[in-house]
Amino acid sequence: MSQAEIGLIGLGVMGSNLALNIAEKGNRIAVFNRTVDATRKFYAEAGALKDQIVPCETIEEFVAAIRPPRPIIIMIKAGDPVDQQMEALKPHLAKGDIMIDAGNANFRDTMRRFDALKDSGLTFIGMGVSGGEEGARHGPSIMVGGTEESYRRVEKVLTSIAAKYDSDPCVAWLGENGAGHFVKTIHNGIEYADMQMIAEIYGILRDGLKMTAQEIGEVFGAWNKGRLNSYLIEITEKVLKAADPLTGKPIVDMILDKAGQKGTGKWSVIEAQNMGVPATAIEAAVAARSISSAKEEREAAEKVLGLPPVGEIKVADRDGFIKDLENALLAAKIGAYAQGFAVMAAASKEFGWNLPMPTIAKIWRAGCIIRSQFLDEITTAFTKAPDAANLIVTPAFAAMVKESDGALRRVVSTAVLGGLPVPALASALGYFDSYRRGRGTANVIQAQRDFFGAHGFDRVDGADSHHGPWGSGLNA
Amino acid sequence: MSQAEIGLIGLGVMGSNLALNIAEKGNRIAVFNRTVDATRKFYAEAGALKDQIVPCETIEEFVAAIRPPRPIIIMIKAGDPVDQQMEALKPHLAKGDIMIDAGNANFRDTMRRFDALKDSGLTFIGMGVSGGEEGARHGPSIMVGGTEESYRRVEKVLTSIAAKYDSDPCVAWLGENGAGHFVKTIHNGIEYADMQMIAEIYGILRDGLKMTAQEIGEVFGAWNKGRLNSYLIEITEKVLKAADPLTGKPIVDMILDKAGQKGTGKWSVIEAQNMGVPATAIEAAVAARSISSAKEEREAAEKVLGLPPVGEIKVADRDGFIKDLENALLAAKIGAYAQGFAVMAAASKEFGWNLPMPTIAKIWRAGCIIRSQFLDEITTAFTKAPDAANLIVTPAFAAMVKESDGALRRVVSTAVLGGLPVPALASALGYFDSYRRGRGTANVIQAQRDFFGAHGFDRVDGADSHHGPWGSGLNA
Repeated sequence: MSQAEIGLIGLGVMGSNLALNIAEKGNRIAVFNRTVDATRKFYAEAGALKDQIVPCETIEEFVAAIRPPRPIIIMIKAGDPVDQQMEALKPHLAKGDIMIDAGNANFRDTMRRFDALKDSGLTFIGMGVSGGEEGARHGPSIMVGGTEESYRRVEKVLTSIAAKYDSDPCVAWLGENGAGHFVKTIHNGIEYADMQMIAEIYGILRDGLKMTAQEIGEVFGAWNKGRLNSYLIEITEKVLKAADPLTGKPIVDMILDKAGQKGTGKWSVIEAQNMGVPATAIEAAVAARSISSAKEEREAAEKVLGLPPVGEIKVADRDGFIKDLENALLAAKIGAYAQGFAVMAAASKEFGWNLPMPTIAKIWRAGCIIRSQFLDEITTAFTKAPDAANLIVTPAFAAMVKESDGALRRVVSTAVLGGLPVPALASALGYFDSYRRGRGTANVIQAQRDFFGAHGFDRVDGADSHHGPWGSGLNA
Repeated sequence: MSQAEIGLIGLGVMGSNLALNIAEKGNRIAVFNRTVDATRKFYAEAGALKDQIVPCETIEEFVAAIRPPRPIIIMIKAGDPVDQQMEALKPHLAKGDIMIDAGNANFRDTMRRFDALKDSGLTFIGMGVSGGEEGARHGPSIMVGGTEESYRRVEKVLTSIAAKYDSDPCVAWLGENGAGHFVKTIHNGIEYADMQMIAEIYGILRDGLKMTAQEIGEVFGAWNKGRLNSYLIEITEKVLKAADPLTGKPIVDMILDKAGQKGTGKWSVIEAQNMGVPATAIEAAVAARSISSAKEEREAAEKVLGLPPVGEIKVADRDGFIKDLENALLAAKIGAYAQGFAVMAAASKEFGWNLPMPTIAKIWRAGCIIRSQFLDEITTAFTKAPDAANLIVTPAFAAMVKESDGALRRVVSTAVLGGLPVPALASALGYFDSYRRGRGTANVIQAQRDFFGAHGFDRVDGADSHHGPWGSGLNA
């Protein structure tokens, strides 16, 4: 029997699906799980794919089954378990072998793990995999960080299992050490913003226009045929139209409004802060999830404060307003993506990754949760202008902002007057309006800082005078 | 000659001013500086305060001059220099001596330093000092973290030098290890938000109503006599009315709109993120400074995108609109402070500090940059309801929110339509509107997450069913 092309440890849902995907694409794969039962069950249920799978019950057997240099995907719970698994594996590996963490790791852990193996002869890949269970099984988007050499060893397998957009595989080597997991983190940060913006628009339709879940589903369904066409809009229609098997009511009306989070949104914001890059739309989305999870506090606050006094939105032209909502969502989405790409550009410099922006947009076009036609437009924009300071100043996106920001203005204004929370939409708008204004208002902040702390300022005329004439003001 | 009550290392502007303040209040103080010249110059210029000052040219002399257990204030550049100074001091100290870092340290460094001294017989205080140069000289607000015992040793000196509100000294022991520096960090985060909100209102007056700096100064001057009465509003009037000595024009019109930042705003946001507490108004303020510093990018973006198309704001009732601006600023300020206090409440639990909220508000009433009458109202609110889940659900502040949030709505709505950036004001409003809504929109986010990632959800009816009926939807 020929050796396996690759190995995989961790047969949970994601690991199993990834292994089946690898086998199905004609790659021989060795699998191992901490508990033997899971390995046996997985193999027993693999059907026609059994021929491509080498189930292993010991680490020794597993390692021996893989063709050196051995690429070994580790798909287990992020954090300490990964370090423990790596330690357990190391004694069995040989020069050139590649441990691949395919979980949702913090890229700082990935960098630490990569560095720790530096002089060991072994190497490490941090691999972001997006697309959920279904993506893992039939075609995820794969973001790889590590040495280029180690990527070449696994390129063929990864290319075979990745999602395809037209015929382009959604996988790429993005840079050294933590690059892949960093890009995956920002992908998720953008995903938070995307989902929150959809939820805000849903809120306007539900609480402002008093539409039913079914009606709102129709609206998202129509939008999915237009410029907003994307996986998230598609599934929003589906979830809004789905009925609850227990009550027959729309299932969304039966779901508690407490959203969980697993860390990648938070990491995106923290890294944006570390580098001083505004990521306010992502921040608003992360904050919105936190507020949502404080359900009891919110219920208590509603009792004390009441809902904002306005309530139902009266719009003269309902269809026109819904068209505005569509364009507003598009504009806000541009803001969120612009921020995400700006964070990646800063990180690329900070960590020396040389991240390829057009390639990142390209491999997000299919397979991942934020996949969309929109990302094809970003691919084109960054391909034409790879050094653009910001997505929104590329010609195509500048035109889109100009076309759609009026709608975003009207929607935010209406929602704000109606007491409907639109923190992410408003953040995107604030970002545009701050970023496109050559003369802002920080002059007054600099004056204050100089007044109370003698921090100094520069002048518009470049004159060599850096403090205000407050003098005795300081003693006031 | 009697021994000094306290010692101080680092005769920069802040250190010198603090030393003079200590001496002036009748406390004998030993001072030391890395360069002897600075010590001599400081002493030579100390005038009548010389009697209270013991200038020391060697560490040995300095340590010998202080009454044991020796409290030694270190007021030097934050970061590594503090560690180096502590290492240099340690061999000269004896059991019970207290090193006091009075710089703007990251509280995590303070915790590390505190822990490192645990078994040494020495101890450490992290002391936040706010009020700028002027505060240091004549009365700062002082936030102390360390052992309660070590605080008792310095309480008399600190009480004598702290600012007074009525006759209450603005100093307190807030908790163990990093408590003082953490509270100072959040103080600064709130300060960022406060200043940004003022800058946004200034922008509406300047760019929307086309008022001159002098006219805007009049507006802030009038507001300083009302509910917004505070140091920051007071100095805003002053800086707006000040003339540039070089050109005779208003100085603010000559100041470049690029605001600097030194880290405490960023730390506030990162710690809020770490604990999952929304601090969107502070985040918006930090982001606004980052955007301001990208002046060249903004100028380029304005060329590509143009300013938003609306421009001057037409308001039918100009005085009414300016009254709205005053109330909007008050409402938004409540949001920022509510977030800051919520972050401190979470940190208090996380780090076991038992932070006293009414006391924190109390010692911020005078001496520090955000000092105001408003903080007296917060003191009262938290004294009456120390366990309130949030400032905005205390009766007094709930009433203020209800009175003023309509104005905030109108202002944000008008600014947004007018293309004037109001990210911090809008964040505060989004916070209110999300926080006071018992039924939010995260149900749709939970539905999406379950659809693509099988994350599960809870139901409004508590039924034991945690996944949607998507089933084959997963294969779509």
